[in-house]
Amino acid sequence: MVNPARATPRLVALDWGSTRLRAWLLGEHGAVLAERQNASGASTIEGGPAAFEQALAGLAGDWLDLTLPAVACGMVGSAHGWREAPYVACPARLDTLHEHLVPVKASATTVHIVPGMVDDPTDGTPDVMRGEETQVLGLVKDRSDLGERACVLMPGTHSKWVQVRDGIVTRIRTRMTGETYALLRRQSVLARLMPADDAALNREAFSAGVAAARDARGADLLAQLFSVRTLGLTGRWPSEALPDHLSGLLIGHELVGGLRTADGPLALVGEPELCRRYALALDVLGTAAVTTHANTACAGLWQLAAQAGWVEA
Amino acid sequence: MVNPARATPRLVALDWGSTRLRAWLLGEHGAVLAERQNASGASTIEGGPAAFEQALAGLAGDWLDLTLPAVACGMVGSAHGWREAPYVACPARLDTLHEHLVPVKASATTVHIVPGMVDDPTDGTPDVMRGEETQVLGLVKDRSDLGERACVLMPGTHSKWVQVRDGIVTRIRTRMTGETYALLRRQSVLARLMPADDAALNREAFSAGVAAARDARGADLLAQLFSVRTLGLTGRWPSEALPDHLSGLLIGHELVGGLRTADGPLALVGEPELCRRYALALDVLGTAAVTTHANTACAGLWQLAAQAGWVEA
Repeated sequence: MVNPARATPRLVALDWGSTRLRAWLLGEHGAVLAERQNASGASTIEGGPAAFEQALAGLAGDWLDLTLPAVACGMVGSAHGWREAPYVACPARLDTLHEHLVPVKASATTVHIVPGMVDDPTDGTPDVMRGEETQVLGLVKDRSDLGERACVLMPGTHSKWVQVRDGIVTRIRTRMTGETYALLRRQSVLARLMPADDAALNREAFSAGVAAARDARGADLLAQLFSVRTLGLTGRWPSEALPDHLSGLLIGHELVGGLRTADGPLALVGEPELCRRYALALDVLGTAAVTTHANTACAGLWQLAAQAGWVEA
Repeated sequence: MVNPARATPRLVALDWGSTRLRAWLLGEHGAVLAERQNASGASTIEGGPAAFEQALAGLAGDWLDLTLPAVACGMVGSAHGWREAPYVACPARLDTLHEHLVPVKASATTVHIVPGMVDDPTDGTPDVMRGEETQVLGLVKDRSDLGERACVLMPGTHSKWVQVRDGIVTRIRTRMTGETYALLRRQSVLARLMPADDAALNREAFSAGVAAARDARGADLLAQLFSVRTLGLTGRWPSEALPDHLSGLLIGHELVGGLRTADGPLALVGEPELCRRYALALDVLGTAAVTTHANTACAGLWQLAAQAGWVEA
């Protein structure tokens, strides 16, 4: 139930990623009045700015007609998006991120696009994120302690590890866990021993994969991957357990690699089922996730609007 | 030129893998009188034993009519092959491997199928090979010093690391380097920044990948994979160098993982161009490959026939 006092619409918030467009109509204090989503992801849109405007009108045209400010994060701001919002370089302050919003004029309102962030150290490999910076902002809005010092892990196709210190994003590291899993589970020799459909999580097989990654200290992944086949061939794990063993290996390797440089408490932000899987893996590794948040993008978009002075925090 | 004194056919040798069938007609002392190959790999054949016999007749029917002994290694002996030749368990003597040959009657002759080997320790993960045991046998036939103590590396789709000690195969470890490379290079987000066609080897980009794997001590591969994208996005490597950087990363991780437990000199056996790539990587790691052999399967098949008493060694 939304408090009637908060029911006046104040902001249109958009999380516009590669494959999906999510929109929230927010009232006072960021209260969610309505939420919609569809498959109009930025990577699916061809035809330039007009096509982006049309896609947005298709999902939330009636909201835009309210002439509210609108803020959008995600791949909508990439070079192939609606308009490019250049990366802000790390170390990057979260409380001044709104100064880098890139306005793009639509017929009914102006949409302010959130820039991504780039971490490009002279003595290391570069990394980037676009959309996750807004999730981090939403996280620390409600948990200022994490804004002081935390490692924020947003698992997924390309898991993002974001180090925050004193309200500043100091480091970004992406691990290709989800995409590697999908390729190996569906298209490699490992798929041949696996059932087409996923079964319920086999915690034992998953945990054994995490433990194997831990025991290998996160090294020799290419050998451990083939073991998924031989453990199946020799009957050590039944066919339906193999996808979870593979998942445990990959998530285990990701965590062992990432925890080595993580500074401060670890905060998990993402889809609840996936976060539970990571929390289980962290348990095997003896590391507790301090907090788990389902989606903080909406809170981050509100926070940006507040920092810009368009709404009252 | 074959010495005329050796020109009498003595053996039909078959390397019958998943995707290709290679056949040699061998004379005295294993001299190669003729060589043929086609795409009748074991995984392409449906219809049971008759279909295998037909496929063999299609490539080498005239050789079989000479009523010579025939020896075949590779996936032809798998559960889905012509006839299953059960794995010999490690530690496995190479000089008694012929005792485990499985005969299968064809119309013109009997084909003796070489068993694979399984390494199934109670305190570790199992591993297998089928075909590579014959390559190892062929290698140590000409290099008895390597039969005493060597780590034999056969790079490829599924790279095989085979530890030999006192003529005994003591350990098998498979690393999914080639298959992982192919999936990532063609079907992952990394492919988007890469040209469709491979350019000539970029030694600098390749070596930098190997060095990155070395510096990470073979850990955190999932993070290094994404760096292939960001190094391209930020212009550190041009598009055409990215496949080789990815290749260097994966081969580097394989080598760092494998060398950790390798005992004795390292012997590279495989396709010459791929072996050169591995030799370059070993150079970056400061480890020299003691020897490189193009194909030792044929020599191994001859050696098995000699051990069985069908030909004179």
